[in-house]
Amino acid sequence: MGEKDFSDRALVGDDSLSFVPLAAFQAIRGGITDPIARAEVLADLCRINTLFMIMQAGSGHIGSSFSSTDIITWLWTEVLNDPNGDSADADVYFSSKGHDAPALYSLLLALEKLDFGLLPKLRQLNGLPGHPDVSTPFIATNTGSLGMGISKAYGMARANRYTGRGGRIVVMTGDGELQEGQIWESLQPVANEQLSEITVIVDHNKFQSDTAVAAVSDLGDLEAKFRIFGWEVRRGDGHDFQVLRDALSHFDTVHDKPKVLIADTIKGKGVSFMHGIACGDQTYHFHAGAPSLDNYLKATRELIARVNDRLESLGRPGVALESAPLPTRLAPKNPEKIVLAYGDELLAMARNRKEIVVMDADLLSDCGIEAFKAELPERFIECGIAEQHMVSAAGGMALGGMLPVVHSFACFLSTRANEHIYNNATEKRRIIYTATLAGLVPAGPGHSHQSVRDISAIGAVPGLVAFEPCSEREARLAIRWAVEENPESTYLRFVNVPLDLPYTMPADYRLQVGRGVTLRQGSDVAIIGYGTMLLTNACKAADELAAQGISAAVIDLPWLNRIDDQWVKTLGGYKQIVTLDNHYLEYGQGVMIAAALARTGIRAEVSPIGLAEIPACGANADVLAYHGLDAAGIARAVTARAVVRR
Amino acid sequence: MGEKDFSDRALVGDDSLSFVPLAAFQAIRGGITDPIARAEVLADLCRINTLFMIMQAGSGHIGSSFSSTDIITWLWTEVLNDPNGDSADADVYFSSKGHDAPALYSLLLALEKLDFGLLPKLRQLNGLPGHPDVSTPFIATNTGSLGMGISKAYGMARANRYTGRGGRIVVMTGDGELQEGQIWESLQPVANEQLSEITVIVDHNKFQSDTAVAAVSDLGDLEAKFRIFGWEVRRGDGHDFQVLRDALSHFDTVHDKPKVLIADTIKGKGVSFMHGIACGDQTYHFHAGAPSLDNYLKATRELIARVNDRLESLGRPGVALESAPLPTRLAPKNPEKIVLAYGDELLAMARNRKEIVVMDADLLSDCGIEAFKAELPERFIECGIAEQHMVSAAGGMALGGMLPVVHSFACFLSTRANEHIYNNATEKRRIIYTATLAGLVPAGPGHSHQSVRDISAIGAVPGLVAFEPCSEREARLAIRWAVEENPESTYLRFVNVPLDLPYTMPADYRLQVGRGVTLRQGSDVAIIGYGTMLLTNACKAADELAAQGISAAVIDLPWLNRIDDQWVKTLGGYKQIVTLDNHYLEYGQGVMIAAALARTGIRAEVSPIGLAEIPACGANADVLAYHGLDAAGIARAVTARAVVRR
Repeated sequence: MGEKDFSDRALVGDDSLSFVPLAAFQAIRGGITDPIARAEVLADLCRINTLFMIMQAGSGHIGSSFSSTDIITWLWTEVLNDPNGDSADADVYFSSKGHDAPALYSLLLALEKLDFGLLPKLRQLNGLPGHPDVSTPFIATNTGSLGMGISKAYGMARANRYTGRGGRIVVMTGDGELQEGQIWESLQPVANEQLSEITVIVDHNKFQSDTAVAAVSDLGDLEAKFRIFGWEVRRGDGHDFQVLRDALSHFDTVHDKPKVLIADTIKGKGVSFMHGIACGDQTYHFHAGAPSLDNYLKATRELIARVNDRLESLGRPGVALESAPLPTRLAPKNPEKIVLAYGDELLAMARNRKEIVVMDADLLSDCGIEAFKAELPERFIECGIAEQHMVSAAGGMALGGMLPVVHSFACFLSTRANEHIYNNATEKRRIIYTATLAGLVPAGPGHSHQSVRDISAIGAVPGLVAFEPCSEREARLAIRWAVEENPESTYLRFVNVPLDLPYTMPADYRLQVGRGVTLRQGSDVAIIGYGTMLLTNACKAADELAAQGISAAVIDLPWLNRIDDQWVKTLGGYKQIVTLDNHYLEYGQGVMIAAALARTGIRAEVSPIGLAEIPACGANADVLAYHGLDAAGIARAVTARAVVRR
Repeated sequence: MGEKDFSDRALVGDDSLSFVPLAAFQAIRGGITDPIARAEVLADLCRINTLFMIMQAGSGHIGSSFSSTDIITWLWTEVLNDPNGDSADADVYFSSKGHDAPALYSLLLALEKLDFGLLPKLRQLNGLPGHPDVSTPFIATNTGSLGMGISKAYGMARANRYTGRGGRIVVMTGDGELQEGQIWESLQPVANEQLSEITVIVDHNKFQSDTAVAAVSDLGDLEAKFRIFGWEVRRGDGHDFQVLRDALSHFDTVHDKPKVLIADTIKGKGVSFMHGIACGDQTYHFHAGAPSLDNYLKATRELIARVNDRLESLGRPGVALESAPLPTRLAPKNPEKIVLAYGDELLAMARNRKEIVVMDADLLSDCGIEAFKAELPERFIECGIAEQHMVSAAGGMALGGMLPVVHSFACFLSTRANEHIYNNATEKRRIIYTATLAGLVPAGPGHSHQSVRDISAIGAVPGLVAFEPCSEREARLAIRWAVEENPESTYLRFVNVPLDLPYTMPADYRLQVGRGVTLRQGSDVAIIGYGTMLLTNACKAADELAAQGISAAVIDLPWLNRIDDQWVKTLGGYKQIVTLDNHYLEYGQGVMIAAALARTGIRAEVSPIGLAEIPACGANADVLAYHGLDAAGIARAVTARAVVRR
């Protein structure tokens, strides 16, 4: 990490990443006396490091981090008392939206609240989690799923009143996040209890995941809404430090109400070409994911140039960035894109079936339905971040004769709308739930997004068949089966990580409820699992085992809560059966298989492999290895209990 | 069912139930020409039959049924076009709160939409379910869990626009129900889509389950709230038919917005001593459950006297009620009240442990915590019908150093706040979740309340130990273990039905994680289950089996998602093992036991007993027999697969 010459202030290397070293922050913190001038410079320097972290990680939310950076910089440097500290009157700050974590980390590093060595460790094992987690110093609560923050603040405030602690509690929310019913569920109790120690700041950047908030589900008159729920309201430019100062000072004079600042911000603020200017439903391109190298370099040059111009006008020396090599990433060569294949097959059927309606909860592009929206916009319903509403609305649709296909991430769909899925099931109309981003990987976002509990969460819903495809072909078969054959409802579970698959489905493969298919022959051990990630690693494990003289079959059982006892009996020839779960061991597919073996009297050594603890955050390969779900881990588990030979 | 002489109009027999016969309704419907006069009489006659139904059933919601009776009578007789019918422009009506079902049934019977023979079949097998279900004619959607109705209406309206159907969609909500975040989640999308075909009527009777809405979580200015969410608002007396007529006529002139009528009503309206006049947080006594016979007779006399006075003033003959015998019910002689025992033990610990805070979601009296509230009101937090908020607030409490003990029915707590329980778990602070009304019985409320899916729904939450006690003693041990010993969080699952228990725990019994306790010795078969209902029936089944020469042990395994493999090995002596689930077979305790048997290599014939379909509604004994979970069903299942002898 050599130092760079920034005599040319705009200079940023074109083959490496650049970051602001700690010494530069120390110089600014100690050297600029005007708080607003200081915060302006700190905020932009933090933006440079936020970009650096996201480039290092390969993913992260730029737009939301940048829109909130000025606010948190002001809060943590000028407003909060011993923020998230141990003193009896320490203020508490946390972000309810949570995906602006890179901005907060960047600031905490600059303020020496976090070890600066963590700078390149965003979304790395034992580093800084993709969404906030209390295991990180100065992180007050776990967020990442939306809408919980004000309720948490309510609990903290009431706990403080019991324990005699003082301090304000400041919660950042998104604006798309305000579509979540829990926000409104929490506003009234906080007001009724007159919890004036709570301040909410809405980072109102006008964009949510896919597009403009107004295009998804317009929020209406936010000021009036908060006011009618009993809150003290201020509104102003969230990038104007004077506005922030005035609003927060005003709030300190109000003692009978909770307070909310609706901060008008710009998504991607600080880098001109990343600014989101909401207009229609065009897609915002810097919501999640690392930018291209070109865009990264352009952004960093703009930021450092502005900082150094400011410093020059203050009569101070410029900041010299330091550099670090670009991380290299292995990309799959010819990966299967099962989510896109699913979306393509769904669209093909929908052209002829007028009853199909696609519903989405603001995760369009991750659910493979962009093409559907483009071609059949009249049968595409964007519900916004409102999973409960979406699922109950799907129930109403189904009663009205339509076939709704409902989309979100598995972690949200299966849990946020859990009762609603059950309520629909009791009406016995057909609904298809498509749950993407299932399982341990991608492991960068952290446990709020790693859905490793959804088989359990929805597995007992009557009349809901859960299925996870392991290839583009099986994904197409699955949605076709769900639409054309299944008389009940269907929960389709997808891993989103593109993988080169070391197996192909048999040419004559067709779906039969509760029955598996052998992807790789073997005679000693049967390794049974589902989905691309597990079965890819199982096949690689079988290669390793073969080298040790153990013949392992790999069997795809895509049915997650249905099992055919006659098929189970075909497993009778194996002395050892290994079940794989991309899920907690508790109430995953493995227990269903084991129960079927017990019920049918098949005698085999049964070894379950799956998650036994909260999933780690990090690079996919590291996290799979950590949890023993990579090829080596699977092979190791087989040999550890090998019946045939050791 | 002999006819009574009603020359004395107030005469109601004092040893039987009375109902309005169909002929009386026919006479009124055909004979009174003024719509308001007709509706007034019909409504009060329906109230008489509602009371009759609730007395027949032994349970049901009087207060909420009576507050909505005038509104639905007006809607179904004067406003709705072919309500819930098959025509292309049929209007749709349903109640989102759902627990006013007896009122709607009563009206549908009076209007000959339902077979009058169903009158005495409320909450009976193959009768009229405790909460609405689409299997009943003219019931549009399944409700009973709160807050879903407006979302369902949104789906129905959009489906109608696709299919070309017309018709209004009228949704009744409660007022306590407006505490649910989903209501607010759904209001904006309905307004944004300008779904003017949707009309919501808030039955604003000022009371929720436990007490006054204002005392639980005040709703603030409801009119302004709906207006700011984009709705056309009217407010008026929900018992004044002229007001109803004017408001609904006005709504027909509004074509760019959804509409809401905030109907000021009186809980228990129609029977003077049942009227709820909200004042402080006193308990309303006619929310759920059948009244005493005295109160029943008094209420019916008041209603029939008023009806006959009205009829007399209209120059019409009075209505003669018919009578039916009082149903007899077998009450347990000396039942264990495990929920009260739990609450008592919790209170005893809380006296010395200042960190214990009790939180409730408007189900105080069903959760055994009335005494806690009375003695330690400062550590009792009533959250209202806001499970998401409650659970996230508990997370904030736990982070703030408190030990929250969170209460609701199992069906709501495990599913409505499913993601929130998980989010809390990832913070690794201790929280106790107490979930009552678990399992198949009481079977009267119907599947929205029969929680037979919660083991699956929360079983895989890491660091959350699920436990169901089978006696007062085990309930006390459980909460004490959760507070004093368990380093993790706890989910306590309770059956609420009081039962005479045919077993006692061994004198030296203490809890050991994942290990069962033998309640009854036996050598051929081991029947393993949990909770009062299963183990009571298992012991009775063991008696039946003994008579057939089969020696059955009954084992209590109260741990629902933890099992000790060393303990499992102690089952090796049984040739047959029967697992019982007061839960769906999928992902219930049975699969965990079977998986443990497979994993530990115990060879036995394993027979799982549990629910294979959506639970039926009816009297407890009938429903248990229907699902094969009564003693006879368990014995039958054992002998059907008996290894020892047949």
